[in-house]
Amino acid sequence: MQLLKSLSVGAGLALLPTLALAQDAPAPTFDEVGPYIMTTLLFLVGGFLVFWMAAGFAMLEAGLVRSKNVTTQLTKNIALFAIASIMYWLVGYNLMYPGDGWIIAGWMGGFSATSLEPVGLAAADATLDYASVASDFFFQLMFCATTASIVSGTLAERIKLWPFLIFVVVLTGLIYPIEASWQWGGGWLSEIGFSDFAGSTLVHAAGGFAALAGVVILGPRIGKYNKEGRVIPMPGSNLALATLGTFILWLGWFGFNGGSQLAAGTVGDITDVGRIFANTNMAASAGAVAALVLTQILYKKVDLTMVLNGALAGLVSITAGPLDPTLFGALWIGAVGGVIVVFAVPMLDKLKIDDVVGAIPVHLLAGFWGTMVVPVYTADTSFVTQFIGFAAIGAFVFFVSLVVWIILKGVMGIRVSEESEINGLDMSELGMEAYPEFAKG
Amino acid sequence: MQLLKSLSVGAGLALLPTLALAQDAPAPTFDEVGPYIMTTLLFLVGGFLVFWMAAGFAMLEAGLVRSKNVTTQLTKNIALFAIASIMYWLVGYNLMYPGDGWIIAGWMGGFSATSLEPVGLAAADATLDYASVASDFFFQLMFCATTASIVSGTLAERIKLWPFLIFVVVLTGLIYPIEASWQWGGGWLSEIGFSDFAGSTLVHAAGGFAALAGVVILGPRIGKYNKEGRVIPMPGSNLALATLGTFILWLGWFGFNGGSQLAAGTVGDITDVGRIFANTNMAASAGAVAALVLTQILYKKVDLTMVLNGALAGLVSITAGPLDPTLFGALWIGAVGGVIVVFAVPMLDKLKIDDVVGAIPVHLLAGFWGTMVVPVYTADTSFVTQFIGFAAIGAFVFFVSLVVWIILKGVMGIRVSEESEINGLDMSELGMEAYPEFAKG
Amino acid sequence: MQLLKSLSVGAGLALLPTLALAQDAPAPTFDEVGPYIMTTLLFLVGGFLVFWMAAGFAMLEAGLVRSKNVTTQLTKNIALFAIASIMYWLVGYNLMYPGDGWIIAGWMGGFSATSLEPVGLAAADATLDYASVASDFFFQLMFCATTASIVSGTLAERIKLWPFLIFVVVLTGLIYPIEASWQWGGGWLSEIGFSDFAGSTLVHAAGGFAALAGVVILGPRIGKYNKEGRVIPMPGSNLALATLGTFILWLGWFGFNGGSQLAAGTVGDITDVGRIFANTNMAASAGAVAALVLTQILYKKVDLTMVLNGALAGLVSITAGPLDPTLFGALWIGAVGGVIVVFAVPMLDKLKIDDVVGAIPVHLLAGFWGTMVVPVYTADTSFVTQFIGFAAIGAFVFFVSLVVWIILKGVMGIRVSEESEINGLDMSELGMEAYPEFAKG
Repeated sequence: MQLLKSLSVGAGLALLPTLALAQDAPAPTFDEVGPYIMTTLLFLVGGFLVFWMAAGFAMLEAGLVRSKNVTTQLTKNIALFAIASIMYWLVGYNLMYPGDGWIIAGWMGGFSATSLEPVGLAAADATLDYASVASDFFFQLMFCATTASIVSGTLAERIKLWPFLIFVVVLTGLIYPIEASWQWGGGWLSEIGFSDFAGSTLVHAAGGFAALAGVVILGPRIGKYNKEGRVIPMPGSNLALATLGTFILWLGWFGFNGGSQLAAGTVGDITDVGRIFANTNMAASAGAVAALVLTQILYKKVDLTMVLNGALAGLVSITAGPLDPTLFGALWIGAVGGVIVVFAVPMLDKLKIDDVVGAIPVHLLAGFWGTMVVPVYTADTSFVTQFIGFAAIGAFVFFVSLVVWIILKGVMGIRVSEESEINGLDMSELGMEAYPEFAKG
Repeated sequence: MQLLKSLSVGAGLALLPTLALAQDAPAPTFDEVGPYIMTTLLFLVGGFLVFWMAAGFAMLEAGLVRSKNVTTQLTKNIALFAIASIMYWLVGYNLMYPGDGWIIAGWMGGFSATSLEPVGLAAADATLDYASVASDFFFQLMFCATTASIVSGTLAERIKLWPFLIFVVVLTGLIYPIEASWQWGGGWLSEIGFSDFAGSTLVHAAGGFAALAGVVILGPRIGKYNKEGRVIPMPGSNLALATLGTFILWLGWFGFNGGSQLAAGTVGDITDVGRIFANTNMAASAGAVAALVLTQILYKKVDLTMVLNGALAGLVSITAGPLDPTLFGALWIGAVGGVIVVFAVPMLDKLKIDDVVGAIPVHLLAGFWGTMVVPVYTADTSFVTQFIGFAAIGAFVFFVSLVVWIILKGVMGIRVSEESEINGLDMSELGMEAYPEFAKG
Repeated sequence: MQLLKSLSVGAGLALLPTLALAQDAPAPTFDEVGPYIMTTLLFLVGGFLVFWMAAGFAMLEAGLVRSKNVTTQLTKNIALFAIASIMYWLVGYNLMYPGDGWIIAGWMGGFSATSLEPVGLAAADATLDYASVASDFFFQLMFCATTASIVSGTLAERIKLWPFLIFVVVLTGLIYPIEASWQWGGGWLSEIGFSDFAGSTLVHAAGGFAALAGVVILGPRIGKYNKEGRVIPMPGSNLALATLGTFILWLGWFGFNGGSQLAAGTVGDITDVGRIFANTNMAASAGAVAALVLTQILYKKVDLTMVLNGALAGLVSITAGPLDPTLFGALWIGAVGGVIVVFAVPMLDKLKIDDVVGAIPVHLLAGFWGTMVVPVYTADTSFVTQFIGFAAIGAFVFFVSLVVWIILKGVMGIRVSEESEINGLDMSELGMEAYPEFAKG
């Protein structure tokens, strides 16, 4: 019965390629194609885990804004992901991986939409020492979307929906792919020896710089800093959601860092993926514990949002080099990330940079730390080159973002009216409350 | 130390099969069994992702009903999944895949419970060109449960718990397995050339038709349509949960469509799975963006619930043929799905079909669209055959469901009392509030 | 273009090991290393699924406590996981798997931190018949953390944060690794033939016994049992979160039980993993249905929290032997688990054991049931040996935990003040509400 089942179910789709292959050439043995299959699988599993991070950002941010802005924050998060998917297909992927199609060698790729390989690809036509294009596109797309997710949290509670989404179009279609091509596309940064395994700089700090440019133009929320210079707390409306979001991000990060090994078909590669998983988990744990202990010492009370951001900062910190450190290395690298967050959040407030969810401390500052610490464990890297890479990408993303934000501000305005902000963006921008039945305390 | 560990830990269970095998026959090389292992793994990973969709439906529906009905909606969702698991084992799986055991050839299989292969299966006894029975059962079961999940949303806020659960028994034990056997079990629809890769019709439209039959018998919620014919909005109580549910469903859909390749052990197959992942993600993104833009144009305000349903409609639309389209194909197919939802939701309200979560537009109408568009990209399919398949399954599911609902209505009643409905099903049906401490606004 | 891409992207990291390998010895064929790669992959996928259970416990417990204690419960859950990660690295892993480094043979291992294999491990240096150390560490760590997660629910709403976290240090660094070494580390219990496939006793009952010891010292919440001996219901604040948590745990359990096969590189092993997935799902479903039907019969109303705990009890019940039973076996084993919970929850209340989330019925009692039922399906096991194993681990964990709790109580106190408890731990312990804007009803 089972044989019959395997012949009847899906036979038209699943078996035809194999048959077609058999006529063209002797079918390759599994031995020859195993590594290709494993690496493709790594990208698919890694990719769906990083996809899941989009939900993590959505929950984290929905939990950390006030209830009157939750619907808007949710809308931004699902919309930005959808836009990133389309832009990365339309121009991003080929701009980021130009191969030999650079417009400006090592600095800017070419413009074309992504094509996948044909259905039922023959082994003879496959890049057997890598993976399927579709799986690579799927995996890389998720990194592009992550960069955009980082921006939405910082600018929450006062930015208009559509200017934000237009910024996402530019960020995911141009800014991220271009700066990422400098390193992962084989551009000038990779040639001078910069090292950023899974994107502490390319993804996280880049997202942080785009957010920083936005917040500089946008300004703080009404009432956040009063006339005496005091910081008025605006606590998040749902810490259960924020915690869920952090757990989701932590889970997704195994795909983010582990998949960045870009290979899973040899003993060395799959063992390295395991090493990356263990180190990633350790850095997150150490960041959380560091924030836990430090807030107890500093404030005499543990601060859950700091613990959550501490875990995330640990994750960002290890992302530039999750493979080479020992577990103890991952521990202290992640712990320093957690410490950075605890000190940076009030520091930003002193500068009147109103970052609603703490994305700049977590992604930009811990991203800097993670990038700079790489040479401690990774051979053939240098602090100077690491700094050059971070500074170059930071400057590029910051200034291009700044220009885009300024243009958007001039053309359509990026900030809701004072009345809208006070009443909440959900009613003014969307006319739809997230929790319509729950009375406000 | 590691060797010792590998011998001591689990040795009794993990190593015995290998040893037993070695005595019977020369152990097969990994080369020979690799494809079987990979396809089994595809079913296990795909299966747990589709399992996760049950949580997605639960969160989506809990977020879209009013707070007085949340506990009931949660109870229905976890209970229906549990019932589906049991019914699919008891009769569903063998009814759906009769092999040569049809009772009415091509139309109805036989009745027997599912047996798995023995522990420590020898390679010589395995269907090496497919996958393990257990993994196939696990994967297919999740599709059966999904069909039932679709029904619960439409009928929310006024149906009694137990009649609903009895309907689930019939749906998951008989209705779904029989109609699905027509195609995936090798029945008459597969013989005339119908094509439904992962179930736009077999799962999604089928669930939608069962829901439609129910809502026709059940009628709209009290107060939904007033005497002047106006539609009274009844906003969902928790849009954060609804968004979470949508992200969960999106994630699970990679398993739903990707696993439906039913093979992962060749270059062609794993590359196709990657292609399916990329297309599935694109269709969801396009559906979301289409609903985003269209609600802005039509209503001057973006509607988050439409964006969520747009993404889901994009997913349903691509499900009948996620492999063959190009990424651009997936984009426009998904976008049309999103457009369908935006227009169909108010249309259903005009017909006084009160579908609480929009399951009929998303699953039935986008399922129709997805099924009919298959011939554009898939060779050897025709619009006529696609229509025949959709109509046959729709008619069968609708009328059998209608009969079951009518019987349930006659025997035990399917609708709670007016007082219960107004007070909420949570107090009347279960005596347990979902959010007992949060005051109603 | 793709070839270029594969050479440029990550070439420095991913390809070097292969090249280095090639110079030392003839590279092994994929055929030789496939099983190692598959089992390593099983641990990584299984491990991230079990990691996800930490989020499941956090959501379940946050949903079942009152809103004034939610932030504290979330903090405990993320902190305990982070602490477990560090302690299991520092001493736990090597204490649990001593190899030939026992301090007291079969009873207690040695103390040392975990080291991973070098980056880019050569196949010649790998334990090819098992998996990578890093992946094994990652997977096993998650079980240690799970044990701690179980404790936090029982003691909710009145225990101080720091004494709880200090207990977690001892539990995850010493208590769990030592008792688990008796069986999975090849200690005395494994030698007498005890059988606990994935940890009904080693993980779940152990967590339950640690919780029981805590609750005995801690006492019930204020007002839970009034002077007339009546039990005052204290309903959970968010059943949507509790349901989400249950779905997360159910999903994670596929990794928990499936990964415990500890091998995935042969037909027999991967088929067994599939069998475990199917049985695990069946037991959960049967536990849920049993609680559904039983609460309807006993109380005339279905109790959602019982259905959730019924599913979890079904999962715990099958965990000691998820491989050998038939699907029907998994059904009745899981169903009995669900029945146990429905009867045990009120029974515990009669004993004035105030277990906030029902962790003792679910993990300890269903764990006992699951352990004792193993001999029905698993050869070479006996009821006597199963009982000895359960009793030995139970006694050890209970009494050591009791001593630790008593010391903590004497040194720093483990219970918040009466005023703090009444006002809620979130304000008194953390100064941070989980839902600051939602008025209390």
